[in-house]
Amino acid sequence: MCPVTSSSSFPRPRKPAITVKDVAEAAGVHPGTVSRVLNQRTRHLVRDETALRVEQVAGEMGYEANQIARGLRMRQSNTVGVLIPDLTNPLFPPIVRGIEDLLDPLGYTALVASTDWDSARERRAFATLATRQVDGFIAATTPSNLKLFGEAADDGTALVLINRTLGRRKVYAVTPDDRTGGRLAADHLVQLGHRRIGHLAGPQELSPGRQRHRSFKAALAKHGIELPDDRVAVARSFTEGAGEDPARALLEPSKKITAIFAANDLLALDCLAVLVEQGRRCPQHVSIMGFNDMPFASRFDPPLTTIHFSPYQLGRRAAELLMEQVEKRGGRPRTVVCEVSLAARGSTVAT
Amino acid sequence: MCPVTSSSSFPRPRKPAITVKDVAEAAGVHPGTVSRVLNQRTRHLVRDETALRVEQVAGEMGYEANQIARGLRMRQSNTVGVLIPDLTNPLFPPIVRGIEDLLDPLGYTALVASTDWDSARERRAFATLATRQVDGFIAATTPSNLKLFGEAADDGTALVLINRTLGRRKVYAVTPDDRTGGRLAADHLVQLGHRRIGHLAGPQELSPGRQRHRSFKAALAKHGIELPDDRVAVARSFTEGAGEDPARALLEPSKKITAIFAANDLLALDCLAVLVEQGRRCPQHVSIMGFNDMPFASRFDPPLTTIHFSPYQLGRRAAELLMEQVEKRGGRPRTVVCEVSLAARGSTVAT
Repeated sequence: MCPVTSSSSFPRPRKPAITVKDVAEAAGVHPGTVSRVLNQRTRHLVRDETALRVEQVAGEMGYEANQIARGLRMRQSNTVGVLIPDLTNPLFPPIVRGIEDLLDPLGYTALVASTDWDSARERRAFATLATRQVDGFIAATTPSNLKLFGEAADDGTALVLINRTLGRRKVYAVTPDDRTGGRLAADHLVQLGHRRIGHLAGPQELSPGRQRHRSFKAALAKHGIELPDDRVAVARSFTEGAGEDPARALLEPSKKITAIFAANDLLALDCLAVLVEQGRRCPQHVSIMGFNDMPFASRFDPPLTTIHFSPYQLGRRAAELLMEQVEKRGGRPRTVVCEVSLAARGSTVAT
Repeated sequence: MCPVTSSSSFPRPRKPAITVKDVAEAAGVHPGTVSRVLNQRTRHLVRDETALRVEQVAGEMGYEANQIARGLRMRQSNTVGVLIPDLTNPLFPPIVRGIEDLLDPLGYTALVASTDWDSARERRAFATLATRQVDGFIAATTPSNLKLFGEAADDGTALVLINRTLGRRKVYAVTPDDRTGGRLAADHLVQLGHRRIGHLAGPQELSPGRQRHRSFKAALAKHGIELPDDRVAVARSFTEGAGEDPARALLEPSKKITAIFAANDLLALDCLAVLVEQGRRCPQHVSIMGFNDMPFASRFDPPLTTIHFSPYQLGRRAAELLMEQVEKRGGRPRTVVCEVSLAARGSTVAT
């Protein structure tokens, strides 16, 4: 047995700093409640009885009241910055909800900035949140800032990329299983008898754009079906409208394409719009499928065939990976891949 | 003519504090760029040439470099807190985009917190953002925190409510024209020949729930049509799923209702789902209409008849009203109402 050393000549270990969480546990309240009580501007939000208890406990534990100054000194704020390129893409709100649902019970708040695919705005939002001392970032970056975020991670910024990876660079990331998704799309269209197949690709600088394209092409090749360059058209971004011109190129009647795999559901909607413009119908004249199974995909006319995954779970996993870094639990930068499956609906039929 | 007084015995007016905007103007850059340059953590985001120019100008003007300390002292942060109850309601993302598009050129960043209709989470998000010293709030609050936000406004917090008003209380607010919307819905259904009409109402503690209900009922009465209590069912919240039970109550076949006006589009989608469950169809058996004309409403099967307004413009107007307060331009608390119109589509037909 190890004798308990109590000699006063031994240097006593420095007492670890008391945290909001410690006070919260001792007082039996949510960490957010402690923050509120200890901030003059927000104390009135808490019931008097609770506030008094928290103050008493904090005082007894020697916790200091000036949260802001403390946060600045400790560089800890219990907030997380979330950078989203386009909140109007229905894929992102459930990702945000997954992030929030994981963070909230831990006493962290997600602060979301949406950047409208504008890389300068994204850099400003990053700078603003860094200035506000967030504890880390979860980001679906624009292509041109990928390198910047990689450098920030190298410099020790807690960071998780969502729906993007950084190639060989070692960064935490969570993505749907884009490779399997591309293969499932190819298998589905081939099984329906399609042979002249097109791909409306996403931006090739982003991993989902690149990997969905490559795996789709590779899987078609395994079925003995070619995907020549003139049956691939690339959209500038993953937004509604960005797919219209490329969809027009693919849907040139002379190309005789009978089915299109679009790299996400918004681009698939653009294909549907172009078909309507041409006086043709989906799925009677051309089968269309997307990727993401975003909210409402099953409500559309026709209900959209797509590759399903859970954006909510993707958000939760991203928040877990961020907390691993923020709380310095060890672990290594890695890419976590979310399972995908085929959601076969009315927009694809046998040729 | 007024002689210019140059006597040194006159007390010189105190030099106004140099702001980020002043430096930005003098250096010919975006205010966000100035903030980035003057913050060690973010300086590397700016090209060296630009950073040097900004530092030189800031130095010449006597602008002080420690942005964070200054922000804390000045209680000014160039950030705005945006509280949204449910980002997965497609109505809110374009509102957020409108807010951002107005704020960004002014050098402000919107930090969005989504609260999942959870009033405790909303209070925590408010407290977190207040602690982070945002310059003001734009909020679509949950019903139970309405009073709290009213008090914050009374205490001098810059605040704009969106999609809510506070009754007689004087708070800045921007809402769609709910009264006209309710009337347009009644006129439309009556003109199509419907007489046994139901209303799937939103929460009556929130002004859009209350006003859409009241104005719809009043307009029906003008047409000589009753809206008895058993043809009104109230949803707990404005979320998808919250309308299912009330929709089942309205769609009891014994009630013989031929048309329903739902208080928003998500609740209208719940009516459609319940009809499918009953083996009936819209619009053949029952006409359904919503409110908001949220993104994708025209893509649904059937395309949804609804009350249209521009959520993007609503967001811009809210941001304008907030800036009026932040920049202390005078002006009084008031409610700005956004124009609405009928979007008649396939989900409503003549009886």
